[in-house]
Amino acid sequence: MKKAVILFSGGLDSTTCLAYATSKGYECYALSFNYGQKHSSELNAAKKIAKKLNVKQHEVIELLLGSLGTSALTDKNLAIPNYKGTSSIPVTYVPARNTIMLSIALGWAETLDADAIFIGVSAVDYSGYPDCRPEYIEAFRTMANKATKRGVEGSPVRIETPLIHLSKAETTKLGLSLGVDYSETVSCYKATIDGLACGKCDSCHLRKKGFEDANIIDPTRYVSS
Amino acid sequence: MKKAVILFSGGLDSTTCLAYATSKGYECYALSFNYGQKHSSELNAAKKIAKKLNVKQHEVIELLLGSLGTSALTDKNLAIPNYKGTSSIPVTYVPARNTIMLSIALGWAETLDADAIFIGVSAVDYSGYPDCRPEYIEAFRTMANKATKRGVEGSPVRIETPLIHLSKAETTKLGLSLGVDYSETVSCYKATIDGLACGKCDSCHLRKKGFEDANIIDPTRYVSS
Repeated sequence: MKKAVILFSGGLDSTTCLAYATSKGYECYALSFNYGQKHSSELNAAKKIAKKLNVKQHEVIELLLGSLGTSALTDKNLAIPNYKGTSSIPVTYVPARNTIMLSIALGWAETLDADAIFIGVSAVDYSGYPDCRPEYIEAFRTMANKATKRGVEGSPVRIETPLIHLSKAETTKLGLSLGVDYSETVSCYKATIDGLACGKCDSCHLRKKGFEDANIIDPTRYVSS
Repeated sequence: MKKAVILFSGGLDSTTCLAYATSKGYECYALSFNYGQKHSSELNAAKKIAKKLNVKQHEVIELLLGSLGTSALTDKNLAIPNYKGTSSIPVTYVPARNTIMLSIALGWAETLDADAIFIGVSAVDYSGYPDCRPEYIEAFRTMANKATKRGVEGSPVRIETPLIHLSKAETTKLGLSLGVDYSETVSCYKATIDGLACGKCDSCHLRKKGFEDANIIDPTRYVSS
């Protein structure tokens, strides 16, 4: 059975990605990170969903970079802002995050002799992070082929991005067609310990818009306002 | 003062690299990893040397990937072989190691607003790891420029590899000219807790040959055979 490593946060995109890889016949190895996010409800959701979707193995890596990375997602002195719709790179950007996660996934994929890594990035409805763009992913692929034993030996680990050209609405429709229960996923940057979403941050804004555009009733559990 | 992040293991190459960056006027931030190496004498050496060379900050990141990476350097069920001179990728290869370390360095460099990352890879006297080759480093540079806020905004963090075209002998001469005391550095894959080298592994073989080729008395402290 072909194997895949899935970068899996427990949010809307990565859960769709996991369901997609499963539907394509991969034996899935889910990889989550505790990188000092301010809340753990995303990781709690990840654990629950990974179990439900029968992943072969779910690893949560402690990657506490402390002073090495500054982001509103991890630094308690920086507030997570509400959605403002600006086009610059926001303070929730975690320096080199996708590169670090993909690199660790690459190491695991080589060890497992896995054929692919799945990452749920999208360049359509996204927060402006540079490491979600197709040209970034393409450059990572090229680098990965030169970095690894498998790459050098001619059977590189593929980096799969099934959502990269999908809008949030399209991703949501794809996930529903694959049986994803989005009420279990947590996307909010400020989720409560029970997984309730704030409804106001960038991530909530994008997710909410996705359900609206797809004409789907939003199953997200919000804090009562 | 311009800043640099130095990937720093406490071995011969990375210590030379650190001395080189210092000589070029950089304020140095040393980055070491505990990735489950079988011995800690390399990290002990790193701490001592970092202090002596007045680095601005020295971070040792716990990166315990457990079952995610298989290598004779970390897996107690795999023996570290003596030097055999074969050309294939050896069992001491740690999947995606340089990619993971460079990625974390990249995140730190962005946070510090550092101009450069130094890594002491060499493609001349090396163990055949794919992630030491110039084409790998070039691909990492391209990827890093697309991954980061700094890259996108036009002032990418530079990836510096001052040793890449140097033989071990040339590296050693460079280090001596910069005042490096190689008796303090630990390169051996099987070093004792006191930092004594086995004299037989790949890493010892390369290092020994470097001193010989450079006509320099080998200051390495070996276990008595």
